[in-house]
Amino acid sequence: MAKSKYEYVREFETEDKLLPNVFILVRIDGKGFHKFSAEHDFAKPNDVRALNLMNHAARSVMNELDDIVLGFGESDEYSFLFRKSTDLYQRREAKIVSTVVSLFTSAYVYYWRDYFPDSSRPKYPPVFDGRAVLYPSEVEVRDYFAWRQADTHINNLFNTSFWALVEQGKMSPRAAEVKLSGTDSKQKNSMLFEEFDINYSKIPAIFRKGSILLREQIPKDMDKDAIIPTLPETLPGSMVAKATLFTVIENSSSSLDTPSETTDSENVIAASSSSSSSLQSSAVASVSSAQDTLSVKSTQDTPQEQELDGVTPEDRKRPADDTKEPSSDSKPVFKRMKKGVVIDHIDIIGEKFWTGRGAYIIAPEKKKRMRTIL
Amino acid sequence: MAKSKYEYVREFETEDKLLPNVFILVRIDGKGFHKFSAEHDFAKPNDVRALNLMNHAARSVMNELDDIVLGFGESDEYSFLFRKSTDLYQRREAKIVSTVVSLFTSAYVYYWRDYFPDSSRPKYPPVFDGRAVLYPSEVEVRDYFAWRQADTHINNLFNTSFWALVEQGKMSPRAAEVKLSGTDSKQKNSMLFEEFDINYSKIPAIFRKGSILLREQIPKDMDKDAIIPTLPETLPGSMVAKATLFTVIENSSSSLDTPSETTDSENVIAASSSSSSSLQSSAVASVSSAQDTLSVKSTQDTPQEQELDGVTPEDRKRPADDTKEPSSDSKPVFKRMKKGVVIDHIDIIGEKFWTGRGAYIIAPEKKKRMRTIL
Amino acid sequence: MAKSKYEYVREFETEDKLLPNVFILVRIDGKGFHKFSAEHDFAKPNDVRALNLMNHAARSVMNELDDIVLGFGESDEYSFLFRKSTDLYQRREAKIVSTVVSLFTSAYVYYWRDYFPDSSRPKYPPVFDGRAVLYPSEVEVRDYFAWRQADTHINNLFNTSFWALVEQGKMSPRAAEVKLSGTDSKQKNSMLFEEFDINYSKIPAIFRKGSILLREQIPKDMDKDAIIPTLPETLPGSMVAKATLFTVIENSSSSLDTPSETTDSENVIAASSSSSSSLQSSAVASVSSAQDTLSVKSTQDTPQEQELDGVTPEDRKRPADDTKEPSSDSKPVFKRMKKGVVIDHIDIIGEKFWTGRGAYIIAPEKKKRMRTIL
Amino acid sequence: MAKSKYEYVREFETEDKLLPNVFILVRIDGKGFHKFSAEHDFAKPNDVRALNLMNHAARSVMNELDDIVLGFGESDEYSFLFRKSTDLYQRREAKIVSTVVSLFTSAYVYYWRDYFPDSSRPKYPPVFDGRAVLYPSEVEVRDYFAWRQADTHINNLFNTSFWALVEQGKMSPRAAEVKLSGTDSKQKNSMLFEEFDINYSKIPAIFRKGSILLREQIPKDMDKDAIIPTLPETLPGSMVAKATLFTVIENSSSSLDTPSETTDSENVIAASSSSSSSLQSSAVASVSSAQDTLSVKSTQDTPQEQELDGVTPEDRKRPADDTKEPSSDSKPVFKRMKKGVVIDHIDIIGEKFWTGRGAYIIAPEKKKRMRTIL
Repeated sequence: MAKSKYEYVREFETEDKLLPNVFILVRIDGKGFHKFSAEHDFAKPNDVRALNLMNHAARSVMNELDDIVLGFGESDEYSFLFRKSTDLYQRREAKIVSTVVSLFTSAYVYYWRDYFPDSSRPKYPPVFDGRAVLYPSEVEVRDYFAWRQADTHINNLFNTSFWALVEQGKMSPRAAEVKLSGTDSKQKNSMLFEEFDINYSKIPAIFRKGSILLREQIPKDMDKDAIIPTLPETLPGSMVAKATLFTVIENSSSSLDTPSETTDSENVIAASSSSSSSLQSSAVASVSSAQDTLSVKSTQDTPQEQELDGVTPEDRKRPADDTKEPSSDSKPVFKRMKKGVVIDHIDIIGEKFWTGRGAYIIAPEKKKRMRTIL
Repeated sequence: MAKSKYEYVREFETEDKLLPNVFILVRIDGKGFHKFSAEHDFAKPNDVRALNLMNHAARSVMNELDDIVLGFGESDEYSFLFRKSTDLYQRREAKIVSTVVSLFTSAYVYYWRDYFPDSSRPKYPPVFDGRAVLYPSEVEVRDYFAWRQADTHINNLFNTSFWALVEQGKMSPRAAEVKLSGTDSKQKNSMLFEEFDINYSKIPAIFRKGSILLREQIPKDMDKDAIIPTLPETLPGSMVAKATLFTVIENSSSSLDTPSETTDSENVIAASSSSSSSLQSSAVASVSSAQDTLSVKSTQDTPQEQELDGVTPEDRKRPADDTKEPSSDSKPVFKRMKKGVVIDHIDIIGEKFWTGRGAYIIAPEKKKRMRTIL
Repeated sequence: MAKSKYEYVREFETEDKLLPNVFILVRIDGKGFHKFSAEHDFAKPNDVRALNLMNHAARSVMNELDDIVLGFGESDEYSFLFRKSTDLYQRREAKIVSTVVSLFTSAYVYYWRDYFPDSSRPKYPPVFDGRAVLYPSEVEVRDYFAWRQADTHINNLFNTSFWALVEQGKMSPRAAEVKLSGTDSKQKNSMLFEEFDINYSKIPAIFRKGSILLREQIPKDMDKDAIIPTLPETLPGSMVAKATLFTVIENSSSSLDTPSETTDSENVIAASSSSSSSLQSSAVASVSSAQDTLSVKSTQDTPQEQELDGVTPEDRKRPADDTKEPSSDSKPVFKRMKKGVVIDHIDIIGEKFWTGRGAYIIAPEKKKRMRTIL
Repeated sequence: MAKSKYEYVREFETEDKLLPNVFILVRIDGKGFHKFSAEHDFAKPNDVRALNLMNHAARSVMNELDDIVLGFGESDEYSFLFRKSTDLYQRREAKIVSTVVSLFTSAYVYYWRDYFPDSSRPKYPPVFDGRAVLYPSEVEVRDYFAWRQADTHINNLFNTSFWALVEQGKMSPRAAEVKLSGTDSKQKNSMLFEEFDINYSKIPAIFRKGSILLREQIPKDMDKDAIIPTLPETLPGSMVAKATLFTVIENSSSSLDTPSETTDSENVIAASSSSSSSLQSSAVASVSSAQDTLSVKSTQDTPQEQELDGVTPEDRKRPADDTKEPSSDSKPVFKRMKKGVVIDHIDIIGEKFWTGRGAYIIAPEKKKRMRTIL
């Protein structure tokens, strides 16, 4: 048979199994997205449509690959964390990385028209690359995500300042760069506030903190691939307003009215509280199905990041009490919950997240799995 | 600075540079394409639209990555060969594999609507995975592609027989499988001819031999991303007829009129000779720009590179004679040539290809490149 | 300069850094030691000289490479565990493995004449090979060593039974194998006791449990490369008696006089208690410096770290009582202690070891090291 | 069974097979040999005993591992080239590297006393490390060895100059270094000749060119592990004279009597011509069996492979003339030949070697081996 004569070439395939029992982190990056952004008139410094499309694609990846326990996105980059014990594709590196990249790319092109409805597809096919990194312990995993979120903060503060100077301040890009060089965060914050009346802490959390994708309870009838509604606010010093297709109310919307330091709380993007202003109501309607249900989720989570493992039924009711109205129907809702991917924009630097909502991510896994391999 | 405190996590990134000066082969495969084919009613045993979309996506990859010197596709699989000396991404494995997979996936979704015009996008995002294999020498490269093409032949003969039994013979899939088990190629050929009047050697070469993507001269004004026209023939024992969107004349179209063993010649899919029958003329018009110029290419290549097993020298001359006219204006055309990706369906098993059209693929490369690295 | 013209060949060297912050385990094995043992008349089933030479070589490795925190040896095999944070040779795999193997081999040949004084060197150069394995967590490290010690037990029980049948029972090797096949541990134990009057639990611990090399306090004036004294006992059913060069008193020497189940205590090979019989005194003298001080160590360790399976608290006190005197001068001794490599033959399967003497091995390490890399 | 419960730890062992059909090069290096040389009073700039011991150890490696086709040594470093098709240990990297390093180390310690008879073993166990590099083609293999031999030349010329200045010129090491810095080869050559009456080209080839180990015909009764005789000459500007244990006649022994430029020929260390002077006769006797036959080899090779930089054609003829007689009895000798490892000190930079004696090293291998794997 002709086949066997040539099949020896398979001998050149080398095994690329990743070490067992360590976290696998796959990070993907847009290739040539500087040009891609320009070609498609992405808003500066942030384009909420583009970010939401990234989030949608990332959610698709996580919906497909159950062993991803955490996602983090900023700009044209996304990180996916697999649980330690994953045996996806027998942990073959090329298979894992290429599948994640392909899934992401496919969804990005596929859902493009839902975020850029003026064009049914981009001007040319966008490309991402990816790579895997192994992290043995929880400390490194936390520090990895802290690294990416700190990077998000630094880049966004710089970009916000830069584009305020250029677009509002009418400076040349060169002059803006010179002015910003050597300044620290505090100085940039002051400049934004004093020169451009921009309270940096009120800029949408999606820009300041990136997007965090978590596996949590979501309403059973929620479409796991629902289009992600855009932000209500216009971003000072940017063209983001043009990009707003849908409007949605912030989770902690009260903070918008009373500008205090507490506004630095999480903004659950894929969700919204029920106190919608008239201005936003029409837009809200268009995403109503998501709202009804997601608002429930928001309320439950509101006390932020609480993990209620080992908590008595009495304890569990209390947080709901704080947000009295929605909680009134919390019981029936609970029956209709399922595990799903939730998109949020919260702090993942520091203890709070990892001992709270993120606790399940780095929770010890049972060893049994490994042992039963043999 | 917050950044530096966490950046140590980069230390966990390991280098994955591929050995220099060996051929890099990246093979990608559709994931779950059994289901994907069924969901999208792909014709059995071959869907020419789907194959052409694969070819289009593969050509996009090669248009983007200059160092790929050869592509070979069959079914939902594609192989890409990089030249030995490529320094693409410093030969980092994950970067190369993920980029190829992403490019391919992106183009597949992007161009879907051009091959499946009834739907603007598939029912869900398709996914591919990929891997790299290193081949040190020309012998292995040739044997690799021989392995894939032999695989194409074996699978297609089986599938053609199977679906003839099921669709035309009204056998159950189970019964068809039983009947075919243990039969050799000769027996399958006989059965097809005697029971279903199918001359296997006349089935379109794209099905029997897969698709070969080469870097050759193409007309300067040719759109390198032009939609690939479909085949004119209906495939006996299949539903391929439904898939025919465009019609195009075979390179060696005379063989269609005089069914002889010489029909086993190459079918330059992205091209066509100028001797079109009236039936085909309208379709040809729709791809006219490609035709005018590509016909020149066909004529030029015909005499030297055609693989005509068991054909006398006299026979070999004929195809060239048939296309006499276009070759007369070959000189002016030459001025308008550029390097481009050509899609063909020829034998790559055996000496002929590798000493003929494929000679450039395994030609020795200059060492200078390597030495100047330092 | 001629040099630079050729130096490009270094480009073919690939990086082989091992993942940071996981345990590195290097295991070495004798190559062709079946033949090597036969050529040098190693006693069956165990040759204490050969085992001590292995231990000596292993200790040399640990004396040289500070980052090895644990060693385990059995037969012609040795395992070395590096601490998680080791940055030895920047964690380059080939460098680490080859250095360990070379160090071991070098010491094995070098010290041969001290264990086989009849010949100044072996009949031909012995060879070992090695490999590295990564273990991310403490659980796997414990299970790795449990795996090796369980292997030691299984092999030794079989070999002891086999050679008893062959040497004392005058059976053919073939017949002995047949008789043993399918028997479990209990049956082998019974057979040894009933047919050959061998109490398996009294066979020297070095044979039953292998050798464990630990980093602990040793007397400051102790030669870290001192020749390891051999065991006092003759091994029933073996030729080990011939191999005894030095004689040394067991840690829990009382057990020799009163053969009870408590004899299953550790035998600190590199050490001995002070209650030496007249027969042993001369040999003891030759390792006297080690004795005075190490006996102190034994006493100190006895109460806490001894693994005494199925032994009552009353039993546990006894060993300490036996060595009452030396412990009285433990304070002045303490001043003269230093870190060194200690050889012992204790249980490393189970909690006791890893929460006791082995606790330092898997103790959490400070992360600072990693972060300061950048 | 206890064993299986823990055996899952084997899952952490990763495959490390080296790419098939490429040359495997293993290079080993002495660790801390600066100190080791000093501790053992190695002669400066070269110690012929130490080099011969290195060569002996390397020959042991090649005698053990048939798939090594070439060895090259200089100073405390050795390179071993495996043939492309080797399947030694299924090409597992750690196994190959560790075995080569262990074999080498073992032989080095083992044969120490034969080269340093004053001491039966070194002051402490010497250590080597090693690594594998893959080379896909013949060009890189040649350039690799050219790289190492060029390195040998550069280092030796510097060291010879340096130690001449220090030992004969009574300069301080610091002053000698300053004087040499920035000088090229020509200047160093002139200085050696003018200031110290040292004709660099007459320094033994083992120092200038390193040692090449080849697989060639050797006399059937020759001991493949015979002690390598040392050089007869004293090295000007060195203490090598002290190191001479055995005396042996140079290949082109006439050059000893008539010191001319022709002495720059190869010195087949493991061999000697038959025209021995009375002073050398006793030593020669001890390697007599090698002499008869190997002298034949020398004569044959002389004309073709000699690299004689700056030598006129007239000069070149002479060495062949000098050894006319032995070649007359080449036929009977041939009957008693076998394949063995030959040590020589010739040019491996340039065409001559690789098309001559070294041709077998890079000769194409049959592919059959690979294909029959499956």
